[in-house]
Amino acid sequence: MTTSTAQTAAGYSATPKTMRASVLKRQGDMAVETLEVPQLEPDQVLVQVAAVGVCGSDVHYYEYGRIGDYVVDHPLILGHELSGRIAAVGSAVDAARIGKRVAVEPQRPCRKCKQCKAGRYNLCPDIEFYATPPIDGAFAEYVTIQSDFAYDIPDSVSDEAAALIEPLSVGLWACERADIRPGSRVLIAGAGPIGIIAAQAARAFGASEIYISDIAEDRLAFALEHGATHALNARTDNVEGLDVDAFIDASGAPQAVRSGIKAVGPAGKVVLVGLGADDVELPVSYIQNREIWLSGVFRYTNTWPLAIQLIADGKVDLDVLITGKFTLAESEEALKAGKQPGQLKAVVYPGR
Amino acid sequence: MTTSTAQTAAGYSATPKTMRASVLKRQGDMAVETLEVPQLEPDQVLVQVAAVGVCGSDVHYYEYGRIGDYVVDHPLILGHELSGRIAAVGSAVDAARIGKRVAVEPQRPCRKCKQCKAGRYNLCPDIEFYATPPIDGAFAEYVTIQSDFAYDIPDSVSDEAAALIEPLSVGLWACERADIRPGSRVLIAGAGPIGIIAAQAARAFGASEIYISDIAEDRLAFALEHGATHALNARTDNVEGLDVDAFIDASGAPQAVRSGIKAVGPAGKVVLVGLGADDVELPVSYIQNREIWLSGVFRYTNTWPLAIQLIADGKVDLDVLITGKFTLAESEEALKAGKQPGQLKAVVYPGR
Amino acid sequence: MTTSTAQTAAGYSATPKTMRASVLKRQGDMAVETLEVPQLEPDQVLVQVAAVGVCGSDVHYYEYGRIGDYVVDHPLILGHELSGRIAAVGSAVDAARIGKRVAVEPQRPCRKCKQCKAGRYNLCPDIEFYATPPIDGAFAEYVTIQSDFAYDIPDSVSDEAAALIEPLSVGLWACERADIRPGSRVLIAGAGPIGIIAAQAARAFGASEIYISDIAEDRLAFALEHGATHALNARTDNVEGLDVDAFIDASGAPQAVRSGIKAVGPAGKVVLVGLGADDVELPVSYIQNREIWLSGVFRYTNTWPLAIQLIADGKVDLDVLITGKFTLAESEEALKAGKQPGQLKAVVYPGR
Amino acid sequence: MTTSTAQTAAGYSATPKTMRASVLKRQGDMAVETLEVPQLEPDQVLVQVAAVGVCGSDVHYYEYGRIGDYVVDHPLILGHELSGRIAAVGSAVDAARIGKRVAVEPQRPCRKCKQCKAGRYNLCPDIEFYATPPIDGAFAEYVTIQSDFAYDIPDSVSDEAAALIEPLSVGLWACERADIRPGSRVLIAGAGPIGIIAAQAARAFGASEIYISDIAEDRLAFALEHGATHALNARTDNVEGLDVDAFIDASGAPQAVRSGIKAVGPAGKVVLVGLGADDVELPVSYIQNREIWLSGVFRYTNTWPLAIQLIADGKVDLDVLITGKFTLAESEEALKAGKQPGQLKAVVYPGR
Repeated sequence: MTTSTAQTAAGYSATPKTMRASVLKRQGDMAVETLEVPQLEPDQVLVQVAAVGVCGSDVHYYEYGRIGDYVVDHPLILGHELSGRIAAVGSAVDAARIGKRVAVEPQRPCRKCKQCKAGRYNLCPDIEFYATPPIDGAFAEYVTIQSDFAYDIPDSVSDEAAALIEPLSVGLWACERADIRPGSRVLIAGAGPIGIIAAQAARAFGASEIYISDIAEDRLAFALEHGATHALNARTDNVEGLDVDAFIDASGAPQAVRSGIKAVGPAGKVVLVGLGADDVELPVSYIQNREIWLSGVFRYTNTWPLAIQLIADGKVDLDVLITGKFTLAESEEALKAGKQPGQLKAVVYPGR
Repeated sequence: MTTSTAQTAAGYSATPKTMRASVLKRQGDMAVETLEVPQLEPDQVLVQVAAVGVCGSDVHYYEYGRIGDYVVDHPLILGHELSGRIAAVGSAVDAARIGKRVAVEPQRPCRKCKQCKAGRYNLCPDIEFYATPPIDGAFAEYVTIQSDFAYDIPDSVSDEAAALIEPLSVGLWACERADIRPGSRVLIAGAGPIGIIAAQAARAFGASEIYISDIAEDRLAFALEHGATHALNARTDNVEGLDVDAFIDASGAPQAVRSGIKAVGPAGKVVLVGLGADDVELPVSYIQNREIWLSGVFRYTNTWPLAIQLIADGKVDLDVLITGKFTLAESEEALKAGKQPGQLKAVVYPGR
Repeated sequence: MTTSTAQTAAGYSATPKTMRASVLKRQGDMAVETLEVPQLEPDQVLVQVAAVGVCGSDVHYYEYGRIGDYVVDHPLILGHELSGRIAAVGSAVDAARIGKRVAVEPQRPCRKCKQCKAGRYNLCPDIEFYATPPIDGAFAEYVTIQSDFAYDIPDSVSDEAAALIEPLSVGLWACERADIRPGSRVLIAGAGPIGIIAAQAARAFGASEIYISDIAEDRLAFALEHGATHALNARTDNVEGLDVDAFIDASGAPQAVRSGIKAVGPAGKVVLVGLGADDVELPVSYIQNREIWLSGVFRYTNTWPLAIQLIADGKVDLDVLITGKFTLAESEEALKAGKQPGQLKAVVYPGR
Repeated sequence: MTTSTAQTAAGYSATPKTMRASVLKRQGDMAVETLEVPQLEPDQVLVQVAAVGVCGSDVHYYEYGRIGDYVVDHPLILGHELSGRIAAVGSAVDAARIGKRVAVEPQRPCRKCKQCKAGRYNLCPDIEFYATPPIDGAFAEYVTIQSDFAYDIPDSVSDEAAALIEPLSVGLWACERADIRPGSRVLIAGAGPIGIIAAQAARAFGASEIYISDIAEDRLAFALEHGATHALNARTDNVEGLDVDAFIDASGAPQAVRSGIKAVGPAGKVVLVGLGADDVELPVSYIQNREIWLSGVFRYTNTWPLAIQLIADGKVDLDVLITGKFTLAESEEALKAGKQPGQLKAVVYPGR
């Protein structure tokens, strides 16, 4: 049986009414359940999920049952880094999209508020974002998304790379806000997935010197192979005085943030990506005396087209980040995988 | 006798070889002394000082003998807010400038470094700034400055207002960096001279709502008459949630900075003008979640022409800020004046 | 009888099913007709039109039956400068809006394309704009518009001023793009309604010198009273060499455009508002040698909130522009009024 | 004998008093002459010229005796694309610079005017530029330049590539002004040296699609090998509708400019590098309706550091452009070389 309001293509397998999903029932408790396939709005597409990357925020919800004010007080489907194939389309969407492979931008801005109309839809106060209570995410066979947030991908882009466009977007947005340009010198703190992706993004933006710092030598070695030009051990190397044009924090560690700021030269930029404490002591007079600009990233806007282009052109390589592959039933294991040494990025395949 | 390398105008009184200056001998010890008139470089003018405003930094050097790494370890002439009349010009300067009334921008950038050539000469690492050890300032009958940093002023601008273009420049530069625009809503913390000047600058930039906060009701009342549209008592009114486009701190108080940041809406700007502790705990996640940009001002660049225009057009009124007038011999008294209730700005007249 | 899909407020007079409208049947042929009140989409409001300004483009459609590729090949309701009162709301709109006085931004972008999502919805290729074939305009008792494009106005803003927010928006957008700032020196060619409004907008943006040029002395005199600081007779005064920061053309005259460009100094801006020939000979080497940026305005984005603020604050005065008032039945007369000497802006009242 | 005011390094060969130079006596008349080595100002260095690229403007002065208002009414040394070695330094320059290989930025801004202090020294009205009457250029054994305009180059950068940093700077500046970014789609008209260099610059700025158009198939083929991703024959391929983000004209051909503008999408950029007629008919309504920004480049500012970095990193390759090498005595031949088929860039070696 097919969902009643959606178009499906002739010859394309009909959309089922139910689906399997991995549900976070409450803190630390996940289970695969059978749920109804979500209903399509007229401007949405139904995506059969191919691959889902595991993000630190998924892990945090699993472990703590909350992030800040967002509390898992009802069952929630995690996962917001995803790719798939369009299985059906809403009544206002061109049926020719059915069957297309897509990367999904997992947010639904209102499109009507001051922020949306100014081109900053990531700051929309009414935005719905996947896997953020009470909005379900992608550890499921099917998800819905507004058609214009499902981007066609070429054959050369793998399902996994397409899923990882989401963290790549964070890196691109950080580089955009950090004003990385040809010849820029940049310091990135933290050689986890976001740090390495930010390094690749910085390279794509033309940075000539990309310093990355971490306490794990294996991560530094990997980062040097896949984006960074210089590696610094955060325990033994002093970054202060590097005089870089930009500092991107992907560590969330207060001490790394403070040191990183002091690595920045006059008129430089600081962009905080990593999430740590709500309040952090910062070297304010250092910032004032050099007129440094400091900000953060909150997700991203309009990054998918560039991300797809960069992957297709071979300017970034996301596949190398994947260190674990899991079926839907193994979702809980996938969430725990990142804690293991040598692990960077786990991917869940909801169809398996 | 005249200085040998300088041109003086026919009929203009010859420049003397010596002058009186009020010298900070060491922390807390000032004295009027007779010194040699400074020698002119080819591209400089000699300015007979008419009026000098007293700045909080002058007071700080007097009271503590240092500001951060800048230590008064040799006798120093204070004062960097000044106007005067050109008494002589260097060999490369048009002699027609002699006799002109001027407002002085009290800094000498190198003009050759990366920052200078990018139009950010305030960030020049080799800049010389008046009244910052070891560079002498303006509590003296004569000073020298590069000719292009002495700006002609019309008759309608008083000596006192011309001197106060320096703090006005701080306010204009803060508004520039805070991206104040027609219709902006802005919060300013601190209703001292800089806060009130920033309010007037914000009004000149078109801000429609200008909130100012302080703990002194008399200062708030004065600010409401001279620039602000709303006054808030920092002890009793909560600024968080105001959702302003920009926050300018002119208080240097950590708690005011933290509250002020939380008054800013998505994509807003924070500009820290006030100097306080080197390190301050800031609400980093608040900044990240709204992609707020935070920075400071370090002096200013290219603000004198606009400042003169605004004064001449009556869009700012600096004369109202002056609450005390002093002769050169009374310089020490002038430095102490600001501590009295109801006092905003003291002016010293080196020629009296 | 009320329209079936719309909410109407208890106690508020029910929306009729039919309305009167002044329809352009074909080039030069207008007639008042009785039409169905337009149906509301869920996100729209129905506005009972209070006042409509007459724009040059309305006149052009009336006289020539086309503007460029837009041809009046079906009956069309003209008018796109309007204010009114919300009579009914779509199913997704808060019923509390019913009865509110509003200024209408007369465009319906798709909200989904690259331009819309980048905050440039005026460049949306699928936009619908009032009174542009085949989209009907506002010479009618009722119109529909998306709720977020109907802006609440305070009591202090007249119906007529609220209608003229549309041309004010053109002026504000021109100043925005021309980077008018405190202290800017600007030349505006053409002292018709748009030129005078642009002068007022420039003043609100802080421009210190606002030159306006025209061949009609009475218009220049009026402009001097209502926004400009200097008037230039385009026949006798040479604007070349004025060295302004920005030139805004509101004349559409090729010779005025060429002269105006040569009035601009290095790194200045040229913004062409006036519509003239498709192709114009421009002084390209002059532009290159000074790195001047030249562009145009195509309507506006996100200008209504600022416009309402400026009117409410008394920083612009639109009521002074109105030189003729007409009933709906007199629409054709209103279209012809602008050709008379001394006439600036005609307003039609569809409810009269 | 050494020049009296300059420092020379111990052990370094003393600077001679005279030098050979190739002088344009008048239109079409060049001769090698013996002239005095130019005197050093305190802030200058004396550069022993290694290599000089021949630019179209050199050829134009040779053929026509003028460019616009600049007339060769006194003997003039041509050449403004140069590298060399520091032979002596002025009294204010660190003597440690003697012996260093440098690329020379051939301009001397005043550093004091509004444009210079705003970071736009290329627009300085008092700038002196090499080989522009009456300022001599580099077809000579020695030249002088302000020390900060002589940039150290690493061993990996050839003399020839270092000389061609000047035209590379034009390309970089064009890309900067055209806002070329990662993923940009750009059209370049003209596959001569500047067009090919602009293509390489665009690639370094991250452009993903770089269309180049020309009428010469051999130039197109070369451009495809060295920077462009797509080649278009200007006679047979229609560029209109390409919908690129930016159009850079390096042809100076009015028809190419007009077509190129119509290749640009909404909010795109047009940067005119090529010099052609003073006045050109442009599609103004096309520009207005899409809010395209159009400007030109006038030389460049602050491009040498990036240029050196890009060459050293292998991101641009200038050596491939060189198709002819000449001694000083062959300068006239070098000027004529560019007219031959298959010739791109001639280099003169003043030391040979």
